[in-house]
Amino acid sequence: MKIEPKLATGFRDYLPDEARTRENMLGKIKEQFALAGFAPLETPGLEKEEVLTGGDPNFKKQLFRAGLPGMAEKLALRFDLTVPLARVVAAYASEMQKPFKRYQIGQVWRGERPQAGRFREFMQCDADIVGAPGVLADAEIVNLIYRVMQALGFRNFLIRLNDRKLLNGLAVYAGFPVKKMPQVLRAIDKLDKLGWGEVKKELADKSGAALGQASLEAIKRFLEIEKDNKAATLAELKKLFAGSDEAQKGADELLEIMKALKALGVPDKFWTLDLSVARGLDYYTGAVFETVLPEALSLGSVMSGGRYDGLIGRFGSVSIPATGVSVGLDRLFAAMKSLNMAGDGASAGVMVLNFDETATETCLTLLSDIRDTGVPAEIYLGAEKTLKGQLAYALKRNCPIAVIIGGEEMKKKMAQVKDLRRRDQKAVPIAEVPAYIQVLLQQ
Amino acid sequence: MKIEPKLATGFRDYLPDEARTRENMLGKIKEQFALAGFAPLETPGLEKEEVLTGGDPNFKKQLFRAGLPGMAEKLALRFDLTVPLARVVAAYASEMQKPFKRYQIGQVWRGERPQAGRFREFMQCDADIVGAPGVLADAEIVNLIYRVMQALGFRNFLIRLNDRKLLNGLAVYAGFPVKKMPQVLRAIDKLDKLGWGEVKKELADKSGAALGQASLEAIKRFLEIEKDNKAATLAELKKLFAGSDEAQKGADELLEIMKALKALGVPDKFWTLDLSVARGLDYYTGAVFETVLPEALSLGSVMSGGRYDGLIGRFGSVSIPATGVSVGLDRLFAAMKSLNMAGDGASAGVMVLNFDETATETCLTLLSDIRDTGVPAEIYLGAEKTLKGQLAYALKRNCPIAVIIGGEEMKKKMAQVKDLRRRDQKAVPIAEVPAYIQVLLQQ
Repeated sequence: MKIEPKLATGFRDYLPDEARTRENMLGKIKEQFALAGFAPLETPGLEKEEVLTGGDPNFKKQLFRAGLPGMAEKLALRFDLTVPLARVVAAYASEMQKPFKRYQIGQVWRGERPQAGRFREFMQCDADIVGAPGVLADAEIVNLIYRVMQALGFRNFLIRLNDRKLLNGLAVYAGFPVKKMPQVLRAIDKLDKLGWGEVKKELADKSGAALGQASLEAIKRFLEIEKDNKAATLAELKKLFAGSDEAQKGADELLEIMKALKALGVPDKFWTLDLSVARGLDYYTGAVFETVLPEALSLGSVMSGGRYDGLIGRFGSVSIPATGVSVGLDRLFAAMKSLNMAGDGASAGVMVLNFDETATETCLTLLSDIRDTGVPAEIYLGAEKTLKGQLAYALKRNCPIAVIIGGEEMKKKMAQVKDLRRRDQKAVPIAEVPAYIQVLLQQ
Repeated sequence: MKIEPKLATGFRDYLPDEARTRENMLGKIKEQFALAGFAPLETPGLEKEEVLTGGDPNFKKQLFRAGLPGMAEKLALRFDLTVPLARVVAAYASEMQKPFKRYQIGQVWRGERPQAGRFREFMQCDADIVGAPGVLADAEIVNLIYRVMQALGFRNFLIRLNDRKLLNGLAVYAGFPVKKMPQVLRAIDKLDKLGWGEVKKELADKSGAALGQASLEAIKRFLEIEKDNKAATLAELKKLFAGSDEAQKGADELLEIMKALKALGVPDKFWTLDLSVARGLDYYTGAVFETVLPEALSLGSVMSGGRYDGLIGRFGSVSIPATGVSVGLDRLFAAMKSLNMAGDGASAGVMVLNFDETATETCLTLLSDIRDTGVPAEIYLGAEKTLKGQLAYALKRNCPIAVIIGGEEMKKKMAQVKDLRRRDQKAVPIAEVPAYIQVLLQQ
């Protein structure tokens, strides 16, 4: 039976050129996570279904169920890395030191309708601090975002900050019931994409928040508040929301984060207060943040997170404060490609050709010597017997350098070192080839 | 509804101390893969069921099926990384340069009965060369094993080599039908664990290969062949198997690998010919290899592989030669733990304490400065307010160093730098702390 080599609908591969760039990105991200004192955690892709759904029979997320024939235990594929973190925090509570700072990088699965650029399996890359009640922890997360973006080579990005407590104050100020807050937040969240006209329509619509004229005007005033000076914005807000203790607290939190970011050396131009940032998820309780690329705004936020003090305690009897960020690796990768930051794919190794049997052992020893200098290298292993054919392969593979040793070279103890980038060639004593290649690659 | 924070049966977590060691191991393994010219590949965990089973309705491996409610497409979780590689090679044939050298690291799932030390989800870590017909590719894989083991810090390991063609010659020599070969190989494979007495019983047993006395004696002679000198062993084998062209070819392949390993600089003591190595999988067609740790033999092989010229072409019409190795990360990790090679877990960061609000901003700036020297560092973020309580946390986290700045220190512009490993403490001007810590950590 002939089977088609097809991917399942909504899934994708990353071939070597792309996978190498992603691998490099992950390396830099992990380095920043480690520098900031986050340690890795590994949990399985498959969990008990009830752990993922919280036992909710009406659980809305599209879970992939999984199992073996005749298996009684109900399993499903994780849809994020936060619920597994909550499970870990509860399961190992006695041996775990809190604050617990972990990062986790792994695949998650969501059965959403496949669309262009949206997949049913993707990589998540999260850093969270569990058991840290103060806003200093939130500032550390924003600092981490700044450092990760820098490490990835981005020089033009903007971290947008808000506080959910401030948004809750909005309900009091604009005079609508708090239970309408989710609809209002969802509408406000679209200000960037749709503009005030559309947002207003959605806020007024009967199928939405169904707000009256007074509330709509109050929300507009709120969204139009002074934005050029962060301290001034917060002072204005405190006045506007004088009736809400919660909003006062939210503004004070943002002021404290502002001071901490300054002390941490995060330049002012890389972050801003943005009162339209709500983040879709209902579980945020304090500071929320997202990161956009002015040159690629349509990608949406490439790194987002916030404080979520209710979620981590879901398996226990006590509430546990937590804050964290999720790096949107796929979006960042897309951004790097569209901004030509993804590298030239030329990180393939030196290719030692292998067309003359009398030279094979000399070539192998040289191969080892090149690798010992830390330079990636390979020997041609295909079926092509001619120098020309092997050279064509090295070119197609984007190898920067080819080394040629045949019978003639063996006699003279010389190798031809060919710079495939500059189409240059030089005869070099075989023993000196590794050092010569190191110099060549630094040019 | 209260949900227990339990793992599914047969699954496990790796908490930070273990995950950090595994992360370090993977970093070293990837470095060697890259040095040898292998590039990463990413494929999804979920594939079409028919791709994984080859359309075989009697497929024996315990596949985890997965799906969404009402989904027509049949999906399953991959059970290895080789079938996805075969799919990729077929699907991208026109744009792919062969030989194609890829590595892939990822989770695989197998519904085996859970046992101590055996899990239903585990990490595979494979490097393969596709489209390389010659034994030089096999030698390169053995060389890769040697280099990975060295990079991981192992100084006592043994790579065992054999060739399936040689084993096929055994059928001719010992006078049993080739169709009994799988049973004979399975029995021979246990020589190490069970000894000749048990292996002989299994070979003679009617439920097994049911070999006669003459065949048993021939197999015993074969297993007892001269082993101290590799060249002599191969010469003896060529004589013993004079009647089998295939066996002659197998012996010649091993001779060629032997020469290549020598030229590549793989020391003789790290590898051996072992005619009992068969590898369980039926798909190997040429050289086969496994790696054992003499100090931890009971772990079995920690890195195995071989040539499998039939499998990669399964989705196409042409056969494609391939050879590769699978790194047993979980077993290597277990070995490193039992041999005390797993590090001391003390790779946590410098802890800057945070017990005096007047010093917070100074502490944050210092934190940034320490990180800028490449040293992992964090600020205390928990609810504990006292110096003593925060210090206890730093000790439990295995932080090597704590930095203390309170009101007194602020006045003098000094910090107390406490070496938690040596229980030593020194007052250092705040501006000089980052450099002082670098020196301290190198001691």
